[in-house]
Amino acid sequence: MILRDIAAALSASLEGDGSIEIAGIADPAAAGRSDLALAMTADAVAALPGTRARAVVVAKSTASPGRFEAVVTVERPRRALAALTRLFDRPVHRSPGIHPTAVVAADAQIAADAAIGPLSVIGPRARIGPGTVLLAHVTVGADAAIGHDCLLHPGVRIGDRVIVGDRAILQHNVSLGADGFSYATPDAAAAGGSAGTALPRIHSLGTVIIEDDVEIGANSAIDRATLTATRIGRNTKIDNLVQIGHNVAIGENCLICGMVGISGSVKIGDRVVLAGGVGVADHVTIGSDAMIAGGSGVAGNVPAKAIMAGYPAVSRERAFEQVKYLARLRALFAEVGELKKRIAALEQGNPRA
Amino acid sequence: MILRDIAAALSASLEGDGSIEIAGIADPAAAGRSDLALAMTADAVAALPGTRARAVVVAKSTASPGRFEAVVTVERPRRALAALTRLFDRPVHRSPGIHPTAVVAADAQIAADAAIGPLSVIGPRARIGPGTVLLAHVTVGADAAIGHDCLLHPGVRIGDRVIVGDRAILQHNVSLGADGFSYATPDAAAAGGSAGTALPRIHSLGTVIIEDDVEIGANSAIDRATLTATRIGRNTKIDNLVQIGHNVAIGENCLICGMVGISGSVKIGDRVVLAGGVGVADHVTIGSDAMIAGGSGVAGNVPAKAIMAGYPAVSRERAFEQVKYLARLRALFAEVGELKKRIAALEQGNPRA
Amino acid sequence: MILRDIAAALSASLEGDGSIEIAGIADPAAAGRSDLALAMTADAVAALPGTRARAVVVAKSTASPGRFEAVVTVERPRRALAALTRLFDRPVHRSPGIHPTAVVAADAQIAADAAIGPLSVIGPRARIGPGTVLLAHVTVGADAAIGHDCLLHPGVRIGDRVIVGDRAILQHNVSLGADGFSYATPDAAAAGGSAGTALPRIHSLGTVIIEDDVEIGANSAIDRATLTATRIGRNTKIDNLVQIGHNVAIGENCLICGMVGISGSVKIGDRVVLAGGVGVADHVTIGSDAMIAGGSGVAGNVPAKAIMAGYPAVSRERAFEQVKYLARLRALFAEVGELKKRIAALEQGNPRA
Repeated sequence: MILRDIAAALSASLEGDGSIEIAGIADPAAAGRSDLALAMTADAVAALPGTRARAVVVAKSTASPGRFEAVVTVERPRRALAALTRLFDRPVHRSPGIHPTAVVAADAQIAADAAIGPLSVIGPRARIGPGTVLLAHVTVGADAAIGHDCLLHPGVRIGDRVIVGDRAILQHNVSLGADGFSYATPDAAAAGGSAGTALPRIHSLGTVIIEDDVEIGANSAIDRATLTATRIGRNTKIDNLVQIGHNVAIGENCLICGMVGISGSVKIGDRVVLAGGVGVADHVTIGSDAMIAGGSGVAGNVPAKAIMAGYPAVSRERAFEQVKYLARLRALFAEVGELKKRIAALEQGNPRA
Repeated sequence: MILRDIAAALSASLEGDGSIEIAGIADPAAAGRSDLALAMTADAVAALPGTRARAVVVAKSTASPGRFEAVVTVERPRRALAALTRLFDRPVHRSPGIHPTAVVAADAQIAADAAIGPLSVIGPRARIGPGTVLLAHVTVGADAAIGHDCLLHPGVRIGDRVIVGDRAILQHNVSLGADGFSYATPDAAAAGGSAGTALPRIHSLGTVIIEDDVEIGANSAIDRATLTATRIGRNTKIDNLVQIGHNVAIGENCLICGMVGISGSVKIGDRVVLAGGVGVADHVTIGSDAMIAGGSGVAGNVPAKAIMAGYPAVSRERAFEQVKYLARLRALFAEVGELKKRIAALEQGNPRA
Repeated sequence: MILRDIAAALSASLEGDGSIEIAGIADPAAAGRSDLALAMTADAVAALPGTRARAVVVAKSTASPGRFEAVVTVERPRRALAALTRLFDRPVHRSPGIHPTAVVAADAQIAADAAIGPLSVIGPRARIGPGTVLLAHVTVGADAAIGHDCLLHPGVRIGDRVIVGDRAILQHNVSLGADGFSYATPDAAAAGGSAGTALPRIHSLGTVIIEDDVEIGANSAIDRATLTATRIGRNTKIDNLVQIGHNVAIGENCLICGMVGISGSVKIGDRVVLAGGVGVADHVTIGSDAMIAGGSGVAGNVPAKAIMAGYPAVSRERAFEQVKYLARLRALFAEVGELKKRIAALEQGNPRA
């Protein structure tokens, strides 16, 4: 690939020799002579003097890179990184066609150019769309439907009747359509049951619907709904080890980071960010464009555009204030003790001052 | 199914035409003419005017449903939902018998009417009880024993010698019997080790015992004990992505919600509820009928019937009080500052009042 | 095994009959006549009067065990437990050779004495070292390399190009080399995106490198790096359900406990302990020998040897102090109210005292 073409693909400006052939992209320290060195952060710029690369990508906002044979300057580093990693992507190995060891139901509908990996299992009446790739050890249940151009990594489990849209990427061991965690407890006040009482199961008759362009991380699980569908909106991205309960509805363009736990029947709008480890109590509603800081516990409804933090989560300003005052509590206790003495002195007619 | 029979199965009262044939159950908005509309919550009652259903189930405690051809009234909505979802359940697809692609040890004992799904693996001397169904891609280790009428979803991993009772339901990718996380650290004071010191492994010779009627959610893991057995009591229900360490003993009828982490050697009584995301430190004991609020961190023993919250967990009353006082800290700091000025004024003989 | 040999293996002192044949190790209550009863904790010593065992192991620091035919006394109980469980280990069942149902690429390199379990899949050009055992249902991607004497439990997923060192133990369903969770958000201030904006994917071109003697727990996931490698240092032990993001580097001899979540680009030194449920924000650095208490949220850099706790994590002393003062807030509010009254009385010339 010629540097000039890369700069054009990034809509970036180019100074110097655009005819350099680029073999790959790399951090300055790791880059070889034929690599394009990425120096779009301050740390990477600092590492530039040691690089062997002749060509470099820098952000407009960072310092000058020094002398290189060619310099590409981008305005939005993360967008450029997305484009560059797409250009030089190393896609996972896959083989075309249906592997002879796959177990495919006779009445499953596999698109002509779909790929089914070794030892995968496709249930009755399941449908796999064109261009979709299932790697090894994937299970697709009866009557499930996977759209076109999806990529399902090894160990993905798709339950019966689950629907996955187009261009989904499901990482290792994703579970879609396990049963919801739902039981009839003895009464509302004694959720744990009382002696000898069973916990009758509320069965999950519903399903899971994953809209287009969704990604789901390794070992995450999304449970099926009681009656209708647990739903993930288009273009929402979900990280590893995320738990999404039954009846949840998540909107479009959300970012759900690692180890988030979303309880049953939660409703989440569009463009919401839940940072790592956030927990959301059941039946809560989170409005569009809300952002919840890492590790927060959301116990009540969150309005649109709110930025929340803490356990229980409050507005970020209040959360920061609480942390600040908590740190000053020792001083406050001391001060109140001191004031007490001064008051006592005043009361005895012997003011200290 | 005839509405009259459904009402009888629920032990519920029925007004109107009991002869209506019911095809399924649904929320009011989704229900068709032949569905039974479920309106046992205030939200669902509010949606009733728009339903196409002719028959409706309501809770005794909610408002009158308006005019329908038939109305079933129940006293305990969650119990009714359990019964209704059982009546109309859509069980996961399974095929009878041992699938020809399953790998079953010659000396494994598979009950005549058990079902072993495609590409499952059953180790030497393992026993699978009557009526038990293993779906695809399940692994059962050597000398493991699964009781009768269990359902193991795709990707379940049962380690060697693990014992599972009757009627267990294990969701996608459950791990039973991984090794405990246990190492001999250099000394008690420096748990992380010191330079150059290895971390000798404490091997897990024990096993896991799951009593009858237990359910375990997708991608949860229960480690084997060092010497004896990590044990889950009968009828306890465990949600997705739950971690249960080695040597843990959990009693009966507990509810362990999603993303709970239980460290090694924890003892939990009966009918305990751990809400989502709770963490429990190692060697802690939690008494029967205790309830721990979502996201709490349990660092010490919890007495029976205690209701706890917070990090570290304290009684719910104290936790709520702390949250309340935290929110008022800004005002307190301001007030103390004001009092300080008034005291200074008094001390100088110029009281402000 | 003869007791005398066991004591020698432990470098422990032995009193009494060293010729007793020992069949196994057990807690005092469970031990039979031919077992060695382990009584290296106060609880276990208390259970000694009821044991059937004739031989017992005690810690030098605990009380005298009473009368037994033989008593082994150890100085370091956890080290002794490691040695004893190694001596009496019950290794997982495995069969030699390549199972006929395994799917092994023609150009994969499998060492002559490696074992590949039933229905495992080995991709093109992958290398499996001598003495390494893959149990059932393991997936190894193209160009991946596993060292010698490793043990991969059922359901482990090794992505393309991932490198695993020697003597690794990977428990059920471990995911190595899923893609990083990395997107180009619209701009830094609006991470969640704005209406209609997509989230371009930053592809993961890098890999995962696991050094020697690492263990990883069930259902844990370690993502591949964007450009280079996510790296786990030698002898580091990782528990179940741990999430380690892209570009993370963890040093040697660390203990990463259950349900820890480590965000992208975190750097962790050697001998660090992250207790259960700790969350670490992205790009944070944690120095060697640091220790983070369970459930803490690490939001900023942690110096070497620091002991931290809380959310957000502060020094353990400050965290304990904050908990103490939080518990006394009610009293402080009351006291300030009282002082206010006394000041008002002083101001009105009527001191209370």
